[in-house]
Amino acid sequence: MRDFSTDHRWLSINTATVRRQRGLDWGLLDILDACAARGIRAVAPWRDQVAAAGLQNVAQRLLAHGIELSGYCRGGMFTYTDAAGLQAVRDDNRRALDEACTLGAPCLVLVVGGLPGALAGKPAHKDIAGAREQVTEGIGALLQDARERGMPLAIEPLHPMYAADRACINTLSQALDVCDALDPTRSGALGVAVDAYHVWWDPQLQAQIERAGRERLLALHVCDWLTPTTDLLEDRGMMGDGVIDLPQLRGWVEDAGFAGYSEVEIFSRANWWQREGGEVLDTCIERHRRCV
Amino acid sequence: MRDFSTDHRWLSINTATVRRQRGLDWGLLDILDACAARGIRAVAPWRDQVAAAGLQNVAQRLLAHGIELSGYCRGGMFTYTDAAGLQAVRDDNRRALDEACTLGAPCLVLVVGGLPGALAGKPAHKDIAGAREQVTEGIGALLQDARERGMPLAIEPLHPMYAADRACINTLSQALDVCDALDPTRSGALGVAVDAYHVWWDPQLQAQIERAGRERLLALHVCDWLTPTTDLLEDRGMMGDGVIDLPQLRGWVEDAGFAGYSEVEIFSRANWWQREGGEVLDTCIERHRRCV
Repeated sequence: MRDFSTDHRWLSINTATVRRQRGLDWGLLDILDACAARGIRAVAPWRDQVAAAGLQNVAQRLLAHGIELSGYCRGGMFTYTDAAGLQAVRDDNRRALDEACTLGAPCLVLVVGGLPGALAGKPAHKDIAGAREQVTEGIGALLQDARERGMPLAIEPLHPMYAADRACINTLSQALDVCDALDPTRSGALGVAVDAYHVWWDPQLQAQIERAGRERLLALHVCDWLTPTTDLLEDRGMMGDGVIDLPQLRGWVEDAGFAGYSEVEIFSRANWWQREGGEVLDTCIERHRRCV
Repeated sequence: MRDFSTDHRWLSINTATVRRQRGLDWGLLDILDACAARGIRAVAPWRDQVAAAGLQNVAQRLLAHGIELSGYCRGGMFTYTDAAGLQAVRDDNRRALDEACTLGAPCLVLVVGGLPGALAGKPAHKDIAGAREQVTEGIGALLQDARERGMPLAIEPLHPMYAADRACINTLSQALDVCDALDPTRSGALGVAVDAYHVWWDPQLQAQIERAGRERLLALHVCDWLTPTTDLLEDRGMMGDGVIDLPQLRGWVEDAGFAGYSEVEIFSRANWWQREGGEVLDTCIERHRRCV
């Protein structure tokens, strides 16, 4: 297992971690500058942040700072109720692929979607098995475009508490079943993003990480699970403040062959988003060295 | 599959559903009277409610009304940090068994506990695998007492969002692995409580219900998963108000041989606990007929 204690060369910042500081949006270009000033070598930006800053502006700033991506956040949301919805999903995911290519991302992360309409509070139906079929079909279709562009797709299983409205792929086992069905040769074009927050509870976690192996392990996301957790979405903890044994998890993914960035992704309305962005980044660096 | 549409003979009320009406505790004896007045034939009371009303008083009132139990809620919380903690767990679970016998329960439901101390916000460690070992050992020890008393134990897998602080058994598969390890002959002394809220998201659900079979399926709990869900613990929905396909789930457990009560268990601080208890019971009856 790599030694993280003396530097932060394998730290990446998911830019949602510092996007809403003290109630104000912190622009992506400013975030990149703040990361560069601290020797942070990688980020994972969100599409809306990129759009707000301008795709080419972001690409140029990344180049100027020598910052690379640990992933592009995000494609997916594959479920739909009609032909127009399906077409919109496909078009949007192709645009996400193109953006990922422009930014030189190592993978496009996929949050696959839940029951159509559920995120807006109006689920169109209760057929989660059907939603899962749509997701597999959607990833299969996108995979052809992704192969053409040489952009790997990373399925991110989300915690089961998001099964209804954000992602109906909820375990690493389930994500790997989809990978095996669509990419049986383990070509490197399709894999998973392992986010500690979503999978830490899974009794099969170690076995499924081994099953994934080097070809399928495309990203590692870290934060922590707080006790108590006061919000389903925006109460993630800084590494070390919760109950996840992050060194154990990192050991498992590295034993399986992963050698990439440890990407910090923290949504924290009441705590970290209330602090000055530089303080949050400094804390990420310190915790990355000590707790991951 | 049984027809529930014309009566509610297979409806049971978990008494937490009507325990905190409009900010006031509704006493268990009054709840029993209100159930009897509506022809509700079964309840699942909580231990603290029984203690407050008096064990013998509750037993007599149940007898007077001809109300039976669908389960006794609850034993478990097996994890500990020292010998005194272990002894306290054992003593408390034996008392729970004795109470379940006095009340004529068909099973003692087990919520197995998470990381010791986590429920109080102070987890003693991050070793969830170790906690799971303590749980298996604890159930194994209690199973001897349970067999002597002829009281089946029903392991209730809790939703993964409770893995840290309430129960580190989080899938039906995992619960059944424990059952198979401790009761390989499928004697009927050890099984599972299937709660729709905790397991609805699981891609393996149908297969694991089939695996459980008649001998292991000791209880069925129903409510609904709301979109959005605003609280991790106390925002459960009334059947029909959320995204769970309850008739499908009931079909699966009945196909596997379950023929017992459908037990309504709703924790709802902002909605159902704010209403008059009789209205909640009437709604449970109506939804039981129409949505379960």
